[in-house]
Amino acid sequence: MKLTILGCYSATPRTLGNTTAQVLEINNHMFLIDCGEGTQVQLRRHKVKFNRIKHIFISHLHGDHFFGLAGLISTFRLLTREADLHIYGPKGIKEVITLQMKLADSWTNYKLCFHELSSKESQLIFEDDNVEVYTIPLEHRIYTNGYLFKEKKGDRKLNIDAVEEANIDTAYYRKLKQGFDVKNEDGVLIKNEAVTFPPKKPKSYAFCSDTVYKEDIVPILKNVDVLYHESTFLEAHAHLAPKTKHSTAKEAASIAKQANAGTLILGHYSSRYPDLEVFRTEAKTVFENVKLAEDGKYFNFN
Amino acid sequence: MKLTILGCYSATPRTLGNTTAQVLEINNHMFLIDCGEGTQVQLRRHKVKFNRIKHIFISHLHGDHFFGLAGLISTFRLLTREADLHIYGPKGIKEVITLQMKLADSWTNYKLCFHELSSKESQLIFEDDNVEVYTIPLEHRIYTNGYLFKEKKGDRKLNIDAVEEANIDTAYYRKLKQGFDVKNEDGVLIKNEAVTFPPKKPKSYAFCSDTVYKEDIVPILKNVDVLYHESTFLEAHAHLAPKTKHSTAKEAASIAKQANAGTLILGHYSSRYPDLEVFRTEAKTVFENVKLAEDGKYFNFN
Repeated sequence: MKLTILGCYSATPRTLGNTTAQVLEINNHMFLIDCGEGTQVQLRRHKVKFNRIKHIFISHLHGDHFFGLAGLISTFRLLTREADLHIYGPKGIKEVITLQMKLADSWTNYKLCFHELSSKESQLIFEDDNVEVYTIPLEHRIYTNGYLFKEKKGDRKLNIDAVEEANIDTAYYRKLKQGFDVKNEDGVLIKNEAVTFPPKKPKSYAFCSDTVYKEDIVPILKNVDVLYHESTFLEAHAHLAPKTKHSTAKEAASIAKQANAGTLILGHYSSRYPDLEVFRTEAKTVFENVKLAEDGKYFNFN
Repeated sequence: MKLTILGCYSATPRTLGNTTAQVLEINNHMFLIDCGEGTQVQLRRHKVKFNRIKHIFISHLHGDHFFGLAGLISTFRLLTREADLHIYGPKGIKEVITLQMKLADSWTNYKLCFHELSSKESQLIFEDDNVEVYTIPLEHRIYTNGYLFKEKKGDRKLNIDAVEEANIDTAYYRKLKQGFDVKNEDGVLIKNEAVTFPPKKPKSYAFCSDTVYKEDIVPILKNVDVLYHESTFLEAHAHLAPKTKHSTAKEAASIAKQANAGTLILGHYSSRYPDLEVFRTEAKTVFENVKLAEDGKYFNFN
């Protein structure tokens, strides 16, 4: 599981600070999460292959989280993309994107599939053999979802030496990977654990931006491996957080602690703070394992 | 008159190439012309004061000319702008911008005035004491206008020494600036030319992007001081120009020559060409005074 931060600042893009966008590589998927203005340039800068992006998840329709989407869709078209593109986001996202295409008389030559969200409960919105994606209902000034990405539990791995030693027909290998005990060629029942290794522990990643401090999300996040939680403010401006429906670094840390997260990544910093290290310092008073998002930084979690 | 090129490439923004946006300073105005994705960052990079922009002219609704507009409007709001903002552009621009604001529940706290265009004839769309702005109907894949910015003829300048020498009451200075002859304190008629200097020759700038080669615009451009004309293609790809409704460098030069322009600036280059100098070389076979737009470059015309 690899997370690349394309932008992690709030409000407006600046010369040295992009607004929210991230790429999550998880179990053969490459998910784009949020798409602030300039995301397509950040994708190029960090050499993300455009064609590997098949799913885009937009948290909410504030510009710093989605004003790069129309341009990216348009660039995909110019690059003669053929693969379907799935876009998950709040109701309204389809209307605004299609209006822009209509005005430009520029329809995509690939299939654009919108999945509009309006539920206030956590929902399973994507699932395949490898990964599940759930919404995390957040509380912000407009309808907003975070997203929880969960690897599915993979197959058990065959212990090839042990399997051969046990004289099991290859026809049973699939059953073994699925965890079943099987009979060998002599009709003896072989315990699965004796000839297989346990599957790799599935990883999970939760993206929570933008939101006021909201304990209701803790059960959804329980035991998540990596939690990105917005921390727009430091303690000095904690009074602004509830008013603007954002969080402080300490509040993000409190959510991470209650959820028993493995790692907390902070981001969505207000540009009023020149020194990001203070975000980590404040968060660490509540939760130990804190990392700072920075534009262009990537995190490997294996 | 000063022109700053914020972006001059076609199609999509890249790490080292921004899409179309320019700032024209003319007679105390600062006009923003087109607003591709990333324009607000380019404005910051080139230290253009956001508050000085009161009028934005959008040529057409292809993304590489206006996907930065919604973000810029939103950033103006965050910066607590108070001055009115006037936006000129094709019909539809109001709907798409207001839809984005509605979805974000982010209304501007300054007045946003849309001037939607749909005429296929050149029109006077802005006028004050100093400047006039006319549309230049272009021919592209969708409804598109170029813009012609013309300084008005200014007042004559007083020759202070001569005025005092001639013993003229200060009450007549305004009349003198307006070009009238006046009587001095002894009742003698003083010829205007004897005590004033002629006004500075008014400058004009024409912006023509995107368009197929179209001689119909020549009369509108007649004797323009500076003409920016798109040159998406070189001769090697001249066959693509009519198909995509763009122009070659030589075609831009031909328009400049027929219009008797003072200076031609080329831009809107296709990213397939690594060497811009070839654009100038090809254009110069038709028209002598050719300059190349480049991101961040500015031109002073005094």
